[in-house]
Amino acid sequence: MSERNAVTVIGLGPMGRALASAFLGAGHPTTVWNRTPGKDEDLVARGAMRAGSPEEAVAASPLTVVCVVNYDASDAVLRRGPVAAALEGRTVVNLSADTPDRARESAAWAAGHGIGYLDGAIMTPAPTIGTADAVLLHSGPEGLHQAHRETLEALGGRQTYLGEEIGRAAAYDIALLDIFWTAMTGYAHALAVARAEGITAQELAPFAGGIATIMPPLFEKSAALVDKGDYTDEINPITSAASTMAHIVHHSEAHGIDASVMRAAEGLARRVIGAGHGADGLLRITELLNPR
Amino acid sequence: MSERNAVTVIGLGPMGRALASAFLGAGHPTTVWNRTPGKDEDLVARGAMRAGSPEEAVAASPLTVVCVVNYDASDAVLRRGPVAAALEGRTVVNLSADTPDRARESAAWAAGHGIGYLDGAIMTPAPTIGTADAVLLHSGPEGLHQAHRETLEALGGRQTYLGEEIGRAAAYDIALLDIFWTAMTGYAHALAVARAEGITAQELAPFAGGIATIMPPLFEKSAALVDKGDYTDEINPITSAASTMAHIVHHSEAHGIDASVMRAAEGLARRVIGAGHGADGLLRITELLNPR
Repeated sequence: MSERNAVTVIGLGPMGRALASAFLGAGHPTTVWNRTPGKDEDLVARGAMRAGSPEEAVAASPLTVVCVVNYDASDAVLRRGPVAAALEGRTVVNLSADTPDRARESAAWAAGHGIGYLDGAIMTPAPTIGTADAVLLHSGPEGLHQAHRETLEALGGRQTYLGEEIGRAAAYDIALLDIFWTAMTGYAHALAVARAEGITAQELAPFAGGIATIMPPLFEKSAALVDKGDYTDEINPITSAASTMAHIVHHSEAHGIDASVMRAAEGLARRVIGAGHGADGLLRITELLNPR
Repeated sequence: MSERNAVTVIGLGPMGRALASAFLGAGHPTTVWNRTPGKDEDLVARGAMRAGSPEEAVAASPLTVVCVVNYDASDAVLRRGPVAAALEGRTVVNLSADTPDRARESAAWAAGHGIGYLDGAIMTPAPTIGTADAVLLHSGPEGLHQAHRETLEALGGRQTYLGEEIGRAAAYDIALLDIFWTAMTGYAHALAVARAEGITAQELAPFAGGIATIMPPLFEKSAALVDKGDYTDEINPITSAASTMAHIVHHSEAHGIDASVMRAAEGLARRVIGAGHGADGLLRITELLNPR
């Protein structure tokens, strides 16, 4: 068995610790650093090297994986003279979440300093990291991705390289988190409405799970049509969806429960109907928001 | 094999036709009626009896299943003298979607006319009806439910009786459709944002499906804690969710895409943070919306 490549992890929140742990578990010499101390005890006990500074951390490995709260935080670590100098000729994979524009701007900065730059997004919670359930997305120069692929494989089972365009991973991330956080806010609201009717979270949860389960086939079935601008949905015309949305708003507010999210969603549906597309399905909102 | 009980179906939209078709398929003598004619050709060709009026329709069977757009529509059919008279001593199962209050008010009306009344909700699309994938919820007097259970079983595999309280099925329906339509609006928005970055629906859909798939275990895992008013979420504090939401709003609007739904969702998250609960998870919004 060949020796594993060394890797540095910057950022030791729950996700960063999971990343470092997965690298250690796969036998990679792993160096760690965090802005505030005290997060690395378990990792050091398992063999991780504790760096005294970010420049020392990045100098320890050909590959540095950064996982902090956003790009403001990663810039604050990476864009200092000594760190940029230590990174020259090495590669950064930035797994911090932010917008595609920030990834593009960082890639330009990295290119100007002779630093290899890849962007990525982690789509599953920290406990999945290093398991078959982990889903990660990567984008950036293909050769660079290939060079570090074997190291990154330690992070888990389902990793997709989305192509050369550095902003692509962040663009998927934004779109997928848009679905996730909108849906979770809907779930929080549903729990509030259910409780007003004496239904507990434990009673609702299995049925709520059933609702989530019917969505993936709906996404798949509609995708080719949506790409053609065809929003036909004979089963669920948007007029019917808007009628249901109005019931939900009315029922929530009758219980004194804020319905601002559903009001905004219903507003989009009403605009689609007002534009003459009431026979189409709810996904016609896509065309309202971003006309082709 | 004993003879199947007769059943009447009122309302022949896509869902009503699916219900009538399932009853026919299970061998129940089935009578159908729809406000506007011409929806019953296929059903009549398969042996359904076409009623000339709603009073004739309900008189043909001990059980009438109503499936119209909402309770305004079902009231317009049922609450006429000749129909109410014909229903006396018979049972209605109202599968039309509306609020729990409308179901309660209709049960009181039915009781005043000697009509048995059950309420129900259909949680899966029309093509599932009559298959193992159909999910239906029922509420109302238990004896009445038991009396018609065998007939209703023709509608498909997963039917849950939620108890005597007549509004319970509608309360679940409202909560579950709250999740569904909020999530679908989030998906429509994500498709618009993705397209602005050159990502097609067909590219995004498999990953979007993956996002939906991670939700049921999150619902299950949090349910007991939520019921205790404990919104701890060490992996995803609401401050981190709000930061992501702000990225989504910013990125959408930078592409000229309306972000009103996410703005409303982020507003709820910010209120939770402002109230001092930033270390809790997003589901703390439930407590903001409906304090215990």
